[in-house]
Amino acid sequence: MNFEKYYTNRAKPLQASGIREMFKLMADPAVISLAGGSPDPDLFPTEELSEIAADILKNDGKKALAYGTTDGYGPLKEELKKRAEKVDSFTSEDKIIITTGGQQGLDLAARVVVEDNEDIVVEAPSFVGTLNSLRSVRANLIGVPMDSDGMNMEKLEETLKNRKVKLIYTIPNFQNPTGITMSLEKRKKMLELAKKYDCLIMEDNPYGDLRFGGEYVPTIKSLDTEGRVIYVSSMSKILSPGLRVGYIVCRAELCDKIEIMKQVNDVHTPCLTQMIACEFLKRYNIDDYIKKACEVYGRKCRFMLDCMDKYFPDGIEWTKPEGGLFILVTCPDTIDAVKLSEIAIKEYKVAFVPSNNFATDMSAKTSSFRLNYSTMPEDKIEEGIKAVGAMLTDMLK
Amino acid sequence: MNFEKYYTNRAKPLQASGIREMFKLMADPAVISLAGGSPDPDLFPTEELSEIAADILKNDGKKALAYGTTDGYGPLKEELKKRAEKVDSFTSEDKIIITTGGQQGLDLAARVVVEDNEDIVVEAPSFVGTLNSLRSVRANLIGVPMDSDGMNMEKLEETLKNRKVKLIYTIPNFQNPTGITMSLEKRKKMLELAKKYDCLIMEDNPYGDLRFGGEYVPTIKSLDTEGRVIYVSSMSKILSPGLRVGYIVCRAELCDKIEIMKQVNDVHTPCLTQMIACEFLKRYNIDDYIKKACEVYGRKCRFMLDCMDKYFPDGIEWTKPEGGLFILVTCPDTIDAVKLSEIAIKEYKVAFVPSNNFATDMSAKTSSFRLNYSTMPEDKIEEGIKAVGAMLTDMLK
Repeated sequence: MNFEKYYTNRAKPLQASGIREMFKLMADPAVISLAGGSPDPDLFPTEELSEIAADILKNDGKKALAYGTTDGYGPLKEELKKRAEKVDSFTSEDKIIITTGGQQGLDLAARVVVEDNEDIVVEAPSFVGTLNSLRSVRANLIGVPMDSDGMNMEKLEETLKNRKVKLIYTIPNFQNPTGITMSLEKRKKMLELAKKYDCLIMEDNPYGDLRFGGEYVPTIKSLDTEGRVIYVSSMSKILSPGLRVGYIVCRAELCDKIEIMKQVNDVHTPCLTQMIACEFLKRYNIDDYIKKACEVYGRKCRFMLDCMDKYFPDGIEWTKPEGGLFILVTCPDTIDAVKLSEIAIKEYKVAFVPSNNFATDMSAKTSSFRLNYSTMPEDKIEEGIKAVGAMLTDMLK
Repeated sequence: MNFEKYYTNRAKPLQASGIREMFKLMADPAVISLAGGSPDPDLFPTEELSEIAADILKNDGKKALAYGTTDGYGPLKEELKKRAEKVDSFTSEDKIIITTGGQQGLDLAARVVVEDNEDIVVEAPSFVGTLNSLRSVRANLIGVPMDSDGMNMEKLEETLKNRKVKLIYTIPNFQNPTGITMSLEKRKKMLELAKKYDCLIMEDNPYGDLRFGGEYVPTIKSLDTEGRVIYVSSMSKILSPGLRVGYIVCRAELCDKIEIMKQVNDVHTPCLTQMIACEFLKRYNIDDYIKKACEVYGRKCRFMLDCMDKYFPDGIEWTKPEGGLFILVTCPDTIDAVKLSEIAIKEYKVAFVPSNNFATDMSAKTSSFRLNYSTMPEDKIEEGIKAVGAMLTDMLK
């Protein structure tokens, strides 16, 4: 049977994420992976979570194994509400629901507010998971370029003026894949434009806690008095991505609708993983844990930047993040980053992600690529950057 | 802000499941719930799972807490493949992926194959979770009535002849909400009709293992040589619903597409819950555990049927399931089952689910309701049935 004819228009254009396909090649332990977006596995509190999981199943097993409510485990909602309140992103008019990772929050919100063929603004480049989620609801993606302090506001206004945009998707802190942080001025401007042109904003903030330099910038959600901002975050980057515990905060009315969409989608997020995350937040001070992670990532980031200074040839540019997990490298136009990455993994066993994966048009040529510094130890980072530097030097000769 | 205008056409008609709303009323521990669809919590192997969870996080914690692959944890896929093979529902041309509960499998398949406004056949009545999932992809639901041995095949053929149906959704074993099992003859006929009129079949089999009477009937998937059947099952009814571990089996090409839709939806099902389920299947013989569950459910079902014989007035009819969790009760047309259920919970603290929840048109009047016998102890079952019987006797006077 040929299944092609049965596929929906929303499913037809979907392709496997290049990054996750690359993960399969990376099963080879000899590969130096600068491709992922995972926290450092050495930071996972495995002993603490082992104890917590055993306690929960022993003492509260029936609750952990039974059906739970769609909006999430009550005590975890309280704990994550506190995390949102810490960045002034939860008001008395808001609700919170727990999602199966941040990705589900983004996907559910897209299903609720993004109609077929509607114009949606995204940062160019942006997070592939959300781009694909928006593609799956048949959004018309419009990329607005990034400056060193976030989305270009003149281009954004021009777009909003000429198109009927429903939603603006942004990762204001340590953006994926650029590592760029949006300035406070631009956050205010984006909100003002959203109001002027009547759009919603989806603020994705998985990395916000991972600041190791510069000054704290308020979330867009905290500046919003109307309820235009749908705030999505998760515990993936501060505790564990594998637990799949994320959350979404927005006005109660909208949140209720998203909750129904979640009910349709997976009934509820597993109770056990929610209870484990909750108990960790109760027994330990996660801010101590985050502080340690920031020290590690700050050190690794500086180390990678130093290596790039040392090994990369003239003519290559890159971002200097104040937090998060990523650096974006931009080469002269003569470099084809897709080809570069293919050679890198095959011949040098070094993996990184070319920027076509983060583009609204994945088939467009790109001369930039994303590097991750959180997962590899420093000797591997140096080895990887040295190899990439040698390739680039060779290609630019 | 009024959010109504931002909602998509797929989100607008979605309403919270009446059953899950009822769960909120049922927080009162005095309520006798014959409404749920959960396994008996006394059967949960909490001690065993506590030990397993602790071991996994202690010995393999980095894997349990890191990102996993979208298709699922490899060793669990192998274990669940064996479960599917046990009912001849996995061929060499098939693939399996792990889903966040069976619900996600049904929802992902719907997103991949059901286009806006396409005609989809469902059993009338049918499982509300799937009906809502199909509504969320804007399917045009067509209910085909049930006989005592499954969907009426004349009505099905008439429908297929007159409409362009893309998919037939069925729960052939111990159907939710009727408890009815489809005969082998009808399974063959459904497949034959699907072939003749070129439709796919979504076979939902969460209860198949829970047979306590009658003879085993082969799955529709096992009869399918072409790849028309998408087979969905889960560990929710045989181990724990709260772990949210389901799976989907179908032809590799289609499964790959569903996998991409899953990537977009929640990246992957939590690693920890998958590893726990896997380790349970490895350390213990789940068939022993299922055997015990069947004994319990068979006993409770017979007990409930006996109570109904004793307390229900003449003129009331009900199904006699050979497995699963549900009995469907049909009253004379003068009884409004929605009103009945409202009075039952408010005045008698007895909960059950009126059949409008399982209808393609939820606003239609119904005189039938679903009873569950798996969760309550026998004294509560008797108390509940006695109260419902008294109400019905009173109403039919």
